[in-house]
Amino acid sequence: GDITAGKAKAGMCAGCHGSNGKAMIPTYPNLAGQNQQYLVSALKAYKSKKRNGGQAVVMQGMAGALSEVDIDNLAAYFASIK
Amino acid sequence: GDITAGKAKAGMCAGCHGSNGKAMIPTYPNLAGQNQQYLVSALKAYKSKKRNGGQAVVMQGMAGALSEVDIDNLAAYFASIK
Repeated sequence: GDITAGKAKAGMCAGCHGSNGKAMIPTYPNLAGQNQQYLVSALKAYKSKKRNGGQAVVMQGMAGALSEVDIDNLAAYFASIK
Repeated sequence: GDITAGKAKAGMCAGCHGSNGKAMIPTYPNLAGQNQQYLVSALKAYKSKKRNGGQAVVMQGMAGALSEVDIDNLAAYFASIK
């Protein structure tokens, strides 16, 4: 994934996951330094609505708006945050 | 949750998530320093089989064996790892 493109796209994530990938709200996960392939897998599971429970419905809406390329770029960006 | 009890219970998690909460395998998430309430929510979603997709079926088996107290203790433990 393209980290720069991911960072640009991540504006929509900052509200819950923080501008630095440290979540504002304790029920949301920190994403900074998370494993890239896991993030791709999680985003696809939200997009396909296979992930439910908790706040999943919120993420299904977010992920639904993402293309495969967006998902790869976002995963690369958040994984890259130290 | 009780961090010490969580650490004892976490032996079964180390194989994939690492003994220090840094996953061995890139498709699995790092858990070290993750938000405690998020971890509880995720474990419950696996236990209730609401979370599917990717490797979720593996975690459903793991979480299925956990009590509410185990879940709280494990979440406290992984959240406490710096």
